[in-house]
Amino acid sequence: MRYSQYMLPTLKEDPAEAEVISHKLMFRAGMIRKLAAGIYSYLPLGLRVIQKVEKIIREEMNRAGAQEVLLPCIQPAELWIETHRWEEYGKDLLRMRDRHDRDCCFGPTHEEVITDIARREIRSYRQMPLNLYQIQTKFRDEIRPRFGLMRGREFIMKDAYSFDVDEAGLDISYQKMYEAYSRIFARCGLTFKVVEAESGLIGGTFSHEFMVLAKTGEEIVVSCQSCDYAANIQKAEARRTRPRSRRPGKTLNPLEKVETPDMKTVAAVTQFLNVRPADLVKTLIFETDHGVVAALIRGDREINESKLQNFLGCEEVKLASDDIVFELTGAPKGFAGPIGLSVKIIADYSIEPMVDFVTGANEVDAHYLNVNLGRDMKVDEFADLQMVKEGDYCPRCGKSLTFFRGIEVGHIFKLGTKYSEALRATYLDEHGREREMVMGCYGIGVGRTAAAAIEQYHDEDGIIWPMPIAPFQVIVVPVNSKIRALMEAAEGIYYPFLGNGVEVLLDDRDSTPGVKFKDADLIGIPLRLTIGEKNLKKGLVELRRRKNGETTLIEKDKVVETVSALIREEIEGSLQA
Amino acid sequence: MRYSQYMLPTLKEDPAEAEVISHKLMFRAGMIRKLAAGIYSYLPLGLRVIQKVEKIIREEMNRAGAQEVLLPCIQPAELWIETHRWEEYGKDLLRMRDRHDRDCCFGPTHEEVITDIARREIRSYRQMPLNLYQIQTKFRDEIRPRFGLMRGREFIMKDAYSFDVDEAGLDISYQKMYEAYSRIFARCGLTFKVVEAESGLIGGTFSHEFMVLAKTGEEIVVSCQSCDYAANIQKAEARRTRPRSRRPGKTLNPLEKVETPDMKTVAAVTQFLNVRPADLVKTLIFETDHGVVAALIRGDREINESKLQNFLGCEEVKLASDDIVFELTGAPKGFAGPIGLSVKIIADYSIEPMVDFVTGANEVDAHYLNVNLGRDMKVDEFADLQMVKEGDYCPRCGKSLTFFRGIEVGHIFKLGTKYSEALRATYLDEHGREREMVMGCYGIGVGRTAAAAIEQYHDEDGIIWPMPIAPFQVIVVPVNSKIRALMEAAEGIYYPFLGNGVEVLLDDRDSTPGVKFKDADLIGIPLRLTIGEKNLKKGLVELRRRKNGETTLIEKDKVVETVSALIREEIEGSLQA
Repeated sequence: MRYSQYMLPTLKEDPAEAEVISHKLMFRAGMIRKLAAGIYSYLPLGLRVIQKVEKIIREEMNRAGAQEVLLPCIQPAELWIETHRWEEYGKDLLRMRDRHDRDCCFGPTHEEVITDIARREIRSYRQMPLNLYQIQTKFRDEIRPRFGLMRGREFIMKDAYSFDVDEAGLDISYQKMYEAYSRIFARCGLTFKVVEAESGLIGGTFSHEFMVLAKTGEEIVVSCQSCDYAANIQKAEARRTRPRSRRPGKTLNPLEKVETPDMKTVAAVTQFLNVRPADLVKTLIFETDHGVVAALIRGDREINESKLQNFLGCEEVKLASDDIVFELTGAPKGFAGPIGLSVKIIADYSIEPMVDFVTGANEVDAHYLNVNLGRDMKVDEFADLQMVKEGDYCPRCGKSLTFFRGIEVGHIFKLGTKYSEALRATYLDEHGREREMVMGCYGIGVGRTAAAAIEQYHDEDGIIWPMPIAPFQVIVVPVNSKIRALMEAAEGIYYPFLGNGVEVLLDDRDSTPGVKFKDADLIGIPLRLTIGEKNLKKGLVELRRRKNGETTLIEKDKVVETVSALIREEIEGSLQA
Repeated sequence: MRYSQYMLPTLKEDPAEAEVISHKLMFRAGMIRKLAAGIYSYLPLGLRVIQKVEKIIREEMNRAGAQEVLLPCIQPAELWIETHRWEEYGKDLLRMRDRHDRDCCFGPTHEEVITDIARREIRSYRQMPLNLYQIQTKFRDEIRPRFGLMRGREFIMKDAYSFDVDEAGLDISYQKMYEAYSRIFARCGLTFKVVEAESGLIGGTFSHEFMVLAKTGEEIVVSCQSCDYAANIQKAEARRTRPRSRRPGKTLNPLEKVETPDMKTVAAVTQFLNVRPADLVKTLIFETDHGVVAALIRGDREINESKLQNFLGCEEVKLASDDIVFELTGAPKGFAGPIGLSVKIIADYSIEPMVDFVTGANEVDAHYLNVNLGRDMKVDEFADLQMVKEGDYCPRCGKSLTFFRGIEVGHIFKLGTKYSEALRATYLDEHGREREMVMGCYGIGVGRTAAAAIEQYHDEDGIIWPMPIAPFQVIVVPVNSKIRALMEAAEGIYYPFLGNGVEVLLDDRDSTPGVKFKDADLIGIPLRLTIGEKNLKKGLVELRRRKNGETTLIEKDKVVETVSALIREEIEGSLQA
């Protein structure tokens, strides 16, 4: 492609509203333009990257035995009503009425449609396992779209759905996708971690997220330094500390109420009472769709609301309002305690070994000292409710856990029979019995993968594309397009590259070398070949690698061969890395 | 691909609602399934064909210098309001409100969005010519979707938009697309005609349609038997017959009113009066958005409403209601005439040479004899209003015109400045003057192209795919999958095919040869290799060509080479054809 004829509007300035690097750089590199909030057009350079990611996805999905289909964007409400998601999905679902006043929506995901196809087409156990995937445009009407392609409303997604006769079959299908996803992100040249995760609105019992590691990532990945345990922060567990055996003979101190005037925080109370935060039990009141509950946790830890929600099996939990806390405890926030509380009390395991601890007294400006389980209060259920902290112990091997920041680019779910049950997607097994299909679903954010690559690989000059998903592999830069010898030499490289299937951009613009180099760096082409007069006289051209700025001189006649080999090497290397 | 693992649900029965062959066969061949009216899912076999058409389109668009982009499905109302199409487009536009109550629509076409990009990004004449295209899902909420992919509501379209500095530039861009489209449909293996056409709602001044010829086509293509003139029936012209010179000395007969009791049709009146239909002038009253008009045409011809609409420059014309006719003429329909009519009268050129003709008398049960132009009545304007008939004379060369039936698969338009004016898409020319960009737009219905291929190539057994867009090029059929030697021989061909990039389906199902042959014919794979015991013993396999049923025996060891060569030949041949 000749740069002078290519629609590649690079910009010097960051767009005002861009908050993250990938959004800024995609905009400045002329890859995307905004049409409306969370809705972007892909310009030629941007689409090239998207299509390269899609190609890798297709190859690996096909290799894993999945079959490509294409499902409609516009879906009738009826199917969503059958699964109850028409009500449950909320405002993220873009709804509309067609000209005949039929309710429909722009698909944010396709469990309903694919399960409808499965229930019509699959009758026998012989037709499974089956894994169908598509690469397609979805719409989720996010309340606050931002970060460019990272959290858009309209976005390109690869979604796959597996159908198996039983859980054992699902395990195999799931494992195949686990491996395919690992190959996909490796082949894209990305550094990533696979982590255990929650399933959220999609439903199901078990899931993994594929996280591209980047300092700017929104998600926190918890990872063991020693074994391969990794989970996202919502799901992460830590090894439980063993209950301290109470010293035999040691008697518990008597319960005592003390005044704690205006002391509403753990810090204030423990300092005033001269105890450690770990000697206090926090009592947090939550409103849930199953009613109000109290959750107890050690003073130096935080509640993981996602764990609480899962434990309770409810759709929503949120900290109770001041009014509800007052009504329940008779005191303002900060003085709640478990003693005498009339709601269900769930305690984190961290409470179990504690003795003679401090709690609120359900009375303004008062706390109890020497509270003890059993003697003074009761817990309805113990559970793992805590947010893991860096340095906690790995639940598998007991070594130390560390935190990374990551961007979720893929998510695989074991759905089980949630959708096949709702939509009556059944088959006949080998004994002629009717059974529900067992499903998995598997998503990759295509645009987000491209954005994550930028978050992972960039510097102050611009993007540093990994070779496998670079929009062009090489940029050929004659330092002065008006000097005929330079343009001729440049074309003498450009055309053989084209003939060899090398993806090459020829910067034939009538611009200064400075402008050309800046643009080449900004758009992040991995290899730059500079054609300058001095070197050319010696029969040499300069090869510069974007990722480390290293330059080498290459004989002009060996450029095509050398560079082609380098490209091959980097593309193949990405899988081994 | 192994048939036993492939999702290819073929059916014996036509779907109840399918009216056209392509719809029936796509359904029966397991290519598509319906989700809602005019909304289809593509199953794996269907998507393969779509993707092959898309690949050919991409290659030819890129070759023509167009650049691929991807624009959003969901578009904000603001842009459509700027071009007035928010009101004009009517109910075909699927509208919705997002969660923040902003009006938006699912794009049925992308002139607004692309012109918005152009006005932001193109500032100088140096940035043109520019041609941007996309392959993307569109939605048009047709009142009566039917014919499967032929007239769906959600459909895949390739749309391109060119931007030029002036009309001369547009001519070049348009010509490039004309040639690219010709190559695309030729490479798809289709027999087609390029015809002059009307522009319709899109606007603009000049357009061509690409019509795949098929007996089942909805459109009528008018084509000269001698020169290359071709037009669709709405646009087609015929050479005007020269006005008969009135015989000198011949005096016109006197106007005479006669009773024609209850005679409302041309046939009834002319028979009763013993004149030819060509001696009568029909007077048709139309309602338009510019008011009521009368159109005159010779009794043996029909009015082409599309020509009338274009001539008047209005959005809509329709035959007036009985009430309006009565109010205007004082008589029921069938007795309208031009004499004394108070509305604008437009006459087809066919009227010009007529003398002493018959017309309605604007009075119930009465006609005039010996009506003459000038003496008895006046015409406001003459125009070409007639529907061309088979056997009319070519407007270019005067030879006879014939009719074909066709399916519109592509349409190219010269838009001019309709959108750049509405959206103020201007650039600075070489003198620094601000000027409007001159646009063209170019569409291909991707799914419709696949459907048209089926309409053109099928027989009573099923589809007959042209090689270039066949979902698989070869099907390998061991007549009995349980006989190990046959399966081994089949796989001995299958794997080398895969290695050679031949698209092959291996029918490894445990079915009778009859079932396998029927399915192979139905899904239309161009080449079938049958592995039977008798031939195999002689080292032979049978090659059968779907298009003519010809069979030949090939040495097993030469199969891969022979068949690969045949495929190459057919694919390359499609462009020369």
